[in-house]
Amino acid sequence: MRGMPEDFVDDMAAVRAPESNLLWTVDMLMDGVHFDSRTHSWAAIGRKAMAVNLSDCAAMAVQPVSALCAVTFGPGLSAEDALALLVAADELGREYDCPIVGGDTNSWGQPTVISITVAARPLPDCPPVRRDGARLGDHLFVSGPLGGSLLRRHLTFEPRVKLALEIARQLRPGAMIDITDGLAIDLSRILEASGCGATLEAGAIDQLIHPDAEEAARQDGRPVREHVFSDGEDFELLVVVPPPIEQSACMALGLTYVGRIDQPEGLFLLEHGRRTPLESRGWEHFR
Amino acid sequence: MRGMPEDFVDDMAAVRAPESNLLWTVDMLMDGVHFDSRTHSWAAIGRKAMAVNLSDCAAMAVQPVSALCAVTFGPGLSAEDALALLVAADELGREYDCPIVGGDTNSWGQPTVISITVAARPLPDCPPVRRDGARLGDHLFVSGPLGGSLLRRHLTFEPRVKLALEIARQLRPGAMIDITDGLAIDLSRILEASGCGATLEAGAIDQLIHPDAEEAARQDGRPVREHVFSDGEDFELLVVVPPPIEQSACMALGLTYVGRIDQPEGLFLLEHGRRTPLESRGWEHFR
Repeated sequence: MRGMPEDFVDDMAAVRAPESNLLWTVDMLMDGVHFDSRTHSWAAIGRKAMAVNLSDCAAMAVQPVSALCAVTFGPGLSAEDALALLVAADELGREYDCPIVGGDTNSWGQPTVISITVAARPLPDCPPVRRDGARLGDHLFVSGPLGGSLLRRHLTFEPRVKLALEIARQLRPGAMIDITDGLAIDLSRILEASGCGATLEAGAIDQLIHPDAEEAARQDGRPVREHVFSDGEDFELLVVVPPPIEQSACMALGLTYVGRIDQPEGLFLLEHGRRTPLESRGWEHFR
Repeated sequence: MRGMPEDFVDDMAAVRAPESNLLWTVDMLMDGVHFDSRTHSWAAIGRKAMAVNLSDCAAMAVQPVSALCAVTFGPGLSAEDALALLVAADELGREYDCPIVGGDTNSWGQPTVISITVAARPLPDCPPVRRDGARLGDHLFVSGPLGGSLLRRHLTFEPRVKLALEIARQLRPGAMIDITDGLAIDLSRILEASGCGATLEAGAIDQLIHPDAEEAARQDGRPVREHVFSDGEDFELLVVVPPPIEQSACMALGLTYVGRIDQPEGLFLLEHGRRTPLESRGWEHFR
């Protein structure tokens, strides 16, 4: 957008009040796109609407403080359904000390739309972790297994807020992002913002295969590794850690090594000693 | 909502960060409900989406600082349409020192939905003006003519931010609200929050008749005064001022006297020396 500060295209934006260092983020979820009210409970839907915002807080290692919820309910929702959605969103928020403090409630004759805004504050001792701080020599880690999330996990995932705060305190990462659109795309966002390139290691990637990725591969016949690279809505953290790497700390935090920032640009896959560009196969190939 | 702090059901909510006194608000606008993309330009629609939030800032006499815009575009929108909406929202925001700093952009096969969140900070020398500070003896003022807004003005109204800040500085109002759902309903919100009652003066109300209210009355055959009482989306300010009243200051600010907080409860109309309860006629009568 015109006038958007180019230096802060990240998982959250600065509120921009002179006396405040708060960040905030908004996500809009639509019935039939991000959830399906024919099969998902309204509580699960409300929970997800909060969780995706908390995941943005995790991506920047900031502490969520409160939320606003705007929603327009579709036809056929009962008052109980509407309350179930709002209560579930609020309950997940409260688990992370981020209650819903206000909002806007509407109804209309079209499918339900939910828009939750979350504000967060940086840790006292760490600035927010942005996307543009990856540097040559940094190591790449992922917080958990990937792939096949849309089979079911996208509704029940646990936002990695607490883990992200620990990572920030212990590892001082140069960059971080939550994996929402797929490991390859989200890593490329860090590389673009930081002006560098990376190599992922095939053997390490294979350590990240989620059982759901295998099930997805069986269902659609595509290689399981493609699901790991390119499936969205995993909401795990991709963490860029500068050396020296404390292996024991990374392991204690449950992080899996996947590669390095070792190129001036581009994204590569290293397999059997051979480095091939991932881009040349095209993101669409992975979709 | 469960757990919502009862003492802050107002035009905005506190962000609730320990080190910040920011307030924030969100409004969701839907195509076919709050605007009609068949007849309204996308720029006008984007402008309104920002304006309704700025009006909430006016209602509390706080200075907007920045906005987030979440939108899902309906089918058939061109990239130019989408940009026109976002640019118009951002441009109006910038007029009030409240640029759009982030957001979430989607598209789907249903009508367009826009959700803008605005954060604001209190004036250094005045706390936010809430709904619950009206007291017996206070006088009621309105910032401009009312009624018939939906004929056209609801898309082009000017949010009363600057006026509200002046009112707060000069008059120290006990309570204030922007008239979104109609003078009678929005005044009743102040009365309920404050635990008191009021009398509106018929002669004064008639001073507030907007030409659009007369046109609406001609179109639907209902009394023009009912349009003044009960039409929504005027976005003028209803201001509750404690005595002593500085008439010259009120006049200089363009405020029109409409009545007083003079009852323990209820809302009344004084006409030809006779006081009749407004409630007994029912809000629906005015709708």
